[in-house]
Amino acid sequence: MLTLYTGKGTCALASHIALEEAGAAYEAVALDMANGAQRAPDYLAINPKGRVPALVTDRGTLTETPAILAYIAQTHPASNLAPIDDPFAFAEVQAFNSYLCSTVHVAHAHGRRAGRWADDAAAISEMKRKMPEVMAACFALIESEMFKGPWVMGDTYTIADPYLFTIASWLEGDKVDPKQFPKVHDHRSRMAERASVKAAVGVYVG
Amino acid sequence: MLTLYTGKGTCALASHIALEEAGAAYEAVALDMANGAQRAPDYLAINPKGRVPALVTDRGTLTETPAILAYIAQTHPASNLAPIDDPFAFAEVQAFNSYLCSTVHVAHAHGRRAGRWADDAAAISEMKRKMPEVMAACFALIESEMFKGPWVMGDTYTIADPYLFTIASWLEGDKVDPKQFPKVHDHRSRMAERASVKAAVGVYVG
Repeated sequence: MLTLYTGKGTCALASHIALEEAGAAYEAVALDMANGAQRAPDYLAINPKGRVPALVTDRGTLTETPAILAYIAQTHPASNLAPIDDPFAFAEVQAFNSYLCSTVHVAHAHGRRAGRWADDAAAISEMKRKMPEVMAACFALIESEMFKGPWVMGDTYTIADPYLFTIASWLEGDKVDPKQFPKVHDHRSRMAERASVKAAVGVYVG
Repeated sequence: MLTLYTGKGTCALASHIALEEAGAAYEAVALDMANGAQRAPDYLAINPKGRVPALVTDRGTLTETPAILAYIAQTHPASNLAPIDDPFAFAEVQAFNSYLCSTVHVAHAHGRRAGRWADDAAAISEMKRKMPEVMAACFALIESEMFKGPWVMGDTYTIADPYLFTIASWLEGDKVDPKQFPKVHDHRSRMAERASVKAAVGVYVG
């Protein structure tokens, strides 16, 4: 049995969807992020980073979305969520997910979490002001250079798809019009119709 | 034959060391980053992100350090650079590398590359001012919670080691005293003595 620690509006949704796609036996625990549950001592004992996702397994706890996604794919090979036996194709999936975590998610974080990198209120405001431009540049690159279609990696659905869906779902909140990116926008709409996505998203409603 | 596009002082050193450790057949091409070679049209045709590393293989080009490191480990299994047949242990390696790319490298980038997230000069200065504090917090977490010793993952050297070495080598330049982190500091010293590291680092001298 796996336990996924997650939170509304966070990147943990990607791992949550992947667990659904894999047909994994898991429990989702949604932390009350608005009240700082991710920094409470009982959660820091699980994940000292004070972030979600964290996936508790019978071997220990895993963190970081790209690592958790690859783990779910590797431990549920029948679900064919990553080309785990083809190192080049697997690296392409990993490169996409690494770009999302290290560049796109980071761009987004400069909107509401700029205090990670500055204390001065004016500097924080300036980062928030520029954030939509940086997010749009990331998605322009995804649209023109990375997205193969109909799924991120081409004909086969992989762990890159729920991760892109999750971050693309932040665009309106980040004041970026997703219709600028027709392939990504269409992908987001098709993803929203999948049973796995409906099941995962449903946990956060209310 | 693999071609690694790299640049002095960049995170591409991690992939370079891993290629040496793997005994891979490769060529290293060091871009003249100071003169913007990473944004020249001929390089953008190889990597539209305008960054290093990029690893050109006979199947195509790979980017993003965590993806390249896992690829090198998977394609050179005899070098035993990652526990590729143990999904949990592999995910632990990947989680460490993902933290380096999405949090620690990002913290460092707020020193010299803060213009990615702000245009205003005062905001850029404020990020540069706070950067050493953020880098030190990252390394405090690595020292206390992540580093197992004697190698990052414990008794066995993995692709997490050259990546930590590479980013730890930036500490003095980031005005962080590495001696605050005895385990990381000792690791860096032992890494510097490895033949693979000497061979890779030597390419950038001068």
